[in-house]
Amino acid sequence: MNYYKMTLAFDGTNYCGWQIQANAISIHATLMRAGHQFLKDAFTITGCSRTDSGVHALGYVALLATALTIEPRQLCNAFNYHLPKDIVIYQAEPVGQKFHPRYSSISKTYRYSIYNNPYPIPQYLKYSYYYYKKLDLEAMIEAAAEFVGTYDFAGFSSIKRTVSDTVRTIYELEVKQVEQRIQIDITGNGFLYNMVRIIAGTLLEVGLGNVQPEQIKPMLLAAKRLRVNKTLPAGGLTLLRVDYQQ
Amino acid sequence: MNYYKMTLAFDGTNYCGWQIQANAISIHATLMRAGHQFLKDAFTITGCSRTDSGVHALGYVALLATALTIEPRQLCNAFNYHLPKDIVIYQAEPVGQKFHPRYSSISKTYRYSIYNNPYPIPQYLKYSYYYYKKLDLEAMIEAAAEFVGTYDFAGFSSIKRTVSDTVRTIYELEVKQVEQRIQIDITGNGFLYNMVRIIAGTLLEVGLGNVQPEQIKPMLLAAKRLRVNKTLPAGGLTLLRVDYQQ
Repeated sequence: MNYYKMTLAFDGTNYCGWQIQANAISIHATLMRAGHQFLKDAFTITGCSRTDSGVHALGYVALLATALTIEPRQLCNAFNYHLPKDIVIYQAEPVGQKFHPRYSSISKTYRYSIYNNPYPIPQYLKYSYYYYKKLDLEAMIEAAAEFVGTYDFAGFSSIKRTVSDTVRTIYELEVKQVEQRIQIDITGNGFLYNMVRIIAGTLLEVGLGNVQPEQIKPMLLAAKRLRVNKTLPAGGLTLLRVDYQQ
Repeated sequence: MNYYKMTLAFDGTNYCGWQIQANAISIHATLMRAGHQFLKDAFTITGCSRTDSGVHALGYVALLATALTIEPRQLCNAFNYHLPKDIVIYQAEPVGQKFHPRYSSISKTYRYSIYNNPYPIPQYLKYSYYYYKKLDLEAMIEAAAEFVGTYDFAGFSSIKRTVSDTVRTIYELEVKQVEQRIQIDITGNGFLYNMVRIIAGTLLEVGLGNVQPEQIKPMLLAAKRLRVNKTLPAGGLTLLRVDYQQ
């Protein structure tokens, strides 16, 4: 068996996320369909995480296991030839059989992007959540620092979560403004269902002055979801990269 | 009569350009339809330029003439309420009756964007032309400088042009790389039909080594279109801004 670590980018707008579902088109199913065109039935693909419906990726990692030996560049080209334009595999490398895209990862980095401008300029909307009222960037930066550390993130996840252990570690949470866009980049050892979108929603409330930065720590310690812990829409979220031990 | 200078952004993908046409949807017709909803029949709209089908804008200027007196911010809001999401008016200001969006302008600035990467990452394609082969940025920068000045741009325009005077002045032509994107920003006193897209196409040939920077000046002096003066697709072109005398 040969194993290839594949890194891909996708515009998730038209997909129900990674996971194969009965009544919707998933990224996984679309990759499987493309693979069947040239790998026939001798392969499996495993993803690094579910992603919600409509979420995008610039550095999603998937493992291909196949009996065939293929040159990595050719593997990319063959997949891309059969994939729709909104999914692209841009890197492939052989890995050992112990590599698992999910369990071998040491951290994941997501970006939530808020387009903060009085008017919704169409060119800037596509991978951002649009918010017209001016947000207080300094307060958001201050609040962001409070999330770094190991906490029970039960209050920052959807009750639709399927795991029981809700303790996660956030290594880094950077908020910065790039032109009219506020980018929230968050790196952690794992994320609960909707966790990034709820942290972004809470930071939006901080930017509006509805939550003070010093209220974040008590929220984390209470581990109970409040009304201000809103979930922002999927379209503003992008999985930037997944890191592995070298 | 009241006159308002309106500045708008649009994603031109689904439009045939500014000018009203019989069998296609234009930006102008879409603005007129929106205006009719609240200004009834008492108004006209004049644009700063035709733009080709599929071309985008971040700073297109149009003049609204109406018998009604409206607060500028309300004017934007009323238009935006009735406009589709791919057109947004983000500025309006009263101007004198001598102002003309086209004839009063002193310069226009366009950006042609080339996404230069081995793989077509879907998120970066929308407002750029995708080119997979590595381009020589230094050569493109050197060649770009040659275009600055007053020349007969007949060789850098489509034969479908409708004007007879083909002399134009380019004030500035900057080529720079922003991540994997090569941005060609060009400011001039006016542009012939397809002129920016043909200059961008010629610079692409320079980036590929098919044209040397020192060949640009002779091309300009010959004022005759050559095969290397290719037209790049409309989707990579954006009208950034129109400047007027203060």
